[in-house]
Amino acid sequence: MTHPFLTERSRGFLPSPVRDVWEASMQPGMISLAGGNPDLSLGDLDWVAEHAARLVREQGPTVLQYGSGTGTTALREAIVRLMAAEDVAADPAAIQVTAGSQLALDLVTKVLCEQGDTVLVEDPTYVGALGTFGGAGLRVEHVAMDAEGLVPAALEERIRHLVAEGRRPRMLYTIPNFQNPSGATLSERRRPQIVELCRAAGIPIVEDNPYGMLTTTPHAHVALHELDPEHVIYLGTFSKVLSPGLRVGWAAAPGWLRRPLQLAAEATVICASPLAQELAAHFVLERPFEAEIARAAAVYAERAEAMRAALAPVLPAGATLSRPQGGFFSWLALPEGWSADALLDAAIDERVVFVPGAAFRAPGEGGGELRLAYSFESPERLAEGARRLGRALARVSAARPA
Amino acid sequence: MTHPFLTERSRGFLPSPVRDVWEASMQPGMISLAGGNPDLSLGDLDWVAEHAARLVREQGPTVLQYGSGTGTTALREAIVRLMAAEDVAADPAAIQVTAGSQLALDLVTKVLCEQGDTVLVEDPTYVGALGTFGGAGLRVEHVAMDAEGLVPAALEERIRHLVAEGRRPRMLYTIPNFQNPSGATLSERRRPQIVELCRAAGIPIVEDNPYGMLTTTPHAHVALHELDPEHVIYLGTFSKVLSPGLRVGWAAAPGWLRRPLQLAAEATVICASPLAQELAAHFVLERPFEAEIARAAAVYAERAEAMRAALAPVLPAGATLSRPQGGFFSWLALPEGWSADALLDAAIDERVVFVPGAAFRAPGEGGGELRLAYSFESPERLAEGARRLGRALARVSAARPA
Repeated sequence: MTHPFLTERSRGFLPSPVRDVWEASMQPGMISLAGGNPDLSLGDLDWVAEHAARLVREQGPTVLQYGSGTGTTALREAIVRLMAAEDVAADPAAIQVTAGSQLALDLVTKVLCEQGDTVLVEDPTYVGALGTFGGAGLRVEHVAMDAEGLVPAALEERIRHLVAEGRRPRMLYTIPNFQNPSGATLSERRRPQIVELCRAAGIPIVEDNPYGMLTTTPHAHVALHELDPEHVIYLGTFSKVLSPGLRVGWAAAPGWLRRPLQLAAEATVICASPLAQELAAHFVLERPFEAEIARAAAVYAERAEAMRAALAPVLPAGATLSRPQGGFFSWLALPEGWSADALLDAAIDERVVFVPGAAFRAPGEGGGELRLAYSFESPERLAEGARRLGRALARVSAARPA
Repeated sequence: MTHPFLTERSRGFLPSPVRDVWEASMQPGMISLAGGNPDLSLGDLDWVAEHAARLVREQGPTVLQYGSGTGTTALREAIVRLMAAEDVAADPAAIQVTAGSQLALDLVTKVLCEQGDTVLVEDPTYVGALGTFGGAGLRVEHVAMDAEGLVPAALEERIRHLVAEGRRPRMLYTIPNFQNPSGATLSERRRPQIVELCRAAGIPIVEDNPYGMLTTTPHAHVALHELDPEHVIYLGTFSKVLSPGLRVGWAAAPGWLRRPLQLAAEATVICASPLAQELAAHFVLERPFEAEIARAAAVYAERAEAMRAALAPVLPAGATLSRPQGGFFSWLALPEGWSADALLDAAIDERVVFVPGAAFRAPGEGGGELRLAYSFESPERLAEGARRLGRALARVSAARPA
């Protein structure tokens, strides 16, 4: 990466440890607690197949052609309906469709941040956001979380400190529900506090909500976007509830952001695939999507419990395992002095993989934490994975100096 | 666009006049010489429909899931075969698949250019590239073209001037074949000159080739990438030969660029749709794609001639119309003192639209030129469009001071 033509900022596109572990996860016999993949067998793939064929046959010259830069009318209306099912109000005019919500984050970054600017993220945070921000040449500041999510006092202190340094953050990136990677959910009482702190400091919030509907206790929390639609940009996706391979996500944006966001979208990808957009739209408009998503959420919850039950007896004293209320991930904090990297080596020997917690922080900040995904494997395989992880923990423990 | 949260660079995401004219083109009865849309009725949409359904039925859990950040193995091999049909050698390992080639340009820009850097483009150039570069906060320098394409002496002089100012360009963006918007093709003798000039100055070239196969005289020109694979990044797309709505394009990159480009792709969109990728791959691997593309090229050539023949009698003295050897566009230069914007107003009254030439230059540089697309309408409609343009020209001429 030292070729003279390459930019300094291109070094910020960090290799994703999730991707590196993904290589290991493809080995035969491996049980993966690594990737955040949805289980597509929970959906109706025959419907997708037939519907894709029907869309091409009946509307081929439209759905296979260039489309609107903001997204198709049907999809923008469908997204509003999907958000309403999660108690988030939006107008179709607010919806900017993107080729996956990762792209929505890229576009928002382009419009809100200059190279060298500072952004706030949770500690830990989504690894893909670190890549987007790093490649944009931004300075990333982590803010502490606990079991109730982002800590308002820590946020306030960090903002004060940065503003005093002349580095007012350009945005706060947060995943309030069933966070990736920690599984934590921002508590109800903290939500208005976070929103108010950012509003007072003149810092827009990017609220990323890929997992919000994947819970057995829906309607439990108000969206930040509901609390302040003028300062909170909401990101959503079909990746976890329908299909990641369609690459359809969106931003619900305040009025002042819509036109710049549309122009950024057109300059980056022209448009999202109209065929994929119409498939996603019809999933919402023609199917009992709420019931289907609730069924999938129950399956994921069962898997979370299966993994948890099997892990409990094998964890070392002092380890803590988060108990997420939804989503795909649990967060395991090992006792002081343990190394997640050393554990990963032993785990791969035992044929189980996970992502070390250091992946979810800016470089140099490591630790003895790991993300465990339960979304993709069966309860039986998750339990077996937990037993394998237990053997890896025992081996690493035996190798440690007393 | 003056909200305090918005960045300075976001103003560089210029509204595309192509999009603005697109609105007009949707009016009933309008003949559009504006958009660069392929005519999808030339392809086999039934095959696309059946094949999409088959892919989902047989490989749903794979093609609807997250995929490789570089692209599927089948597609990267198919792209190599497609490029070989155009006499361009590449290795599958060199291929970075992207969600359309617009995204490839965004990724290359991220990896090669810091905010504030200078890039070289043709005069005129592709409007979408101006959006990408503007939104990246780059300074765009146009280099003169003539009927043989980019002028080497002008390029040399511009590089010398910029280097003397401490603004060494970070890349040259060029469309050597049937350029959008001018229709010009870089002559065979100039190709090694352009490559050598840039190599000597340490400036990588981005060679965008969306239209290369859409000609009735294939194999006429060597690709710049063939002349210097280490310094020329080649961009290709399925948008003009199969479907823009699938959003599948690629970059063929030198070794030093591959890893940064992959990381940039993952940080921007995670991956391109595996379903769309496999559809594109099978178009190449399972169908007589060369014959199909050649048939489409003959249809487009016939349309170019139909438009040209109908325009010839209605153009004012001193106007010149380019005669492209392929692609989708002709370039009409009106005599000194004419305004393409005034002509557009009159043309819309006559129910025909085109894109004024100013769209293809950095802001402030207008002119009496226009891009005429012949790809989408039938020969009869193109001829009628030319007659309507003739009436608009007559009206504007009558209104001009003597």
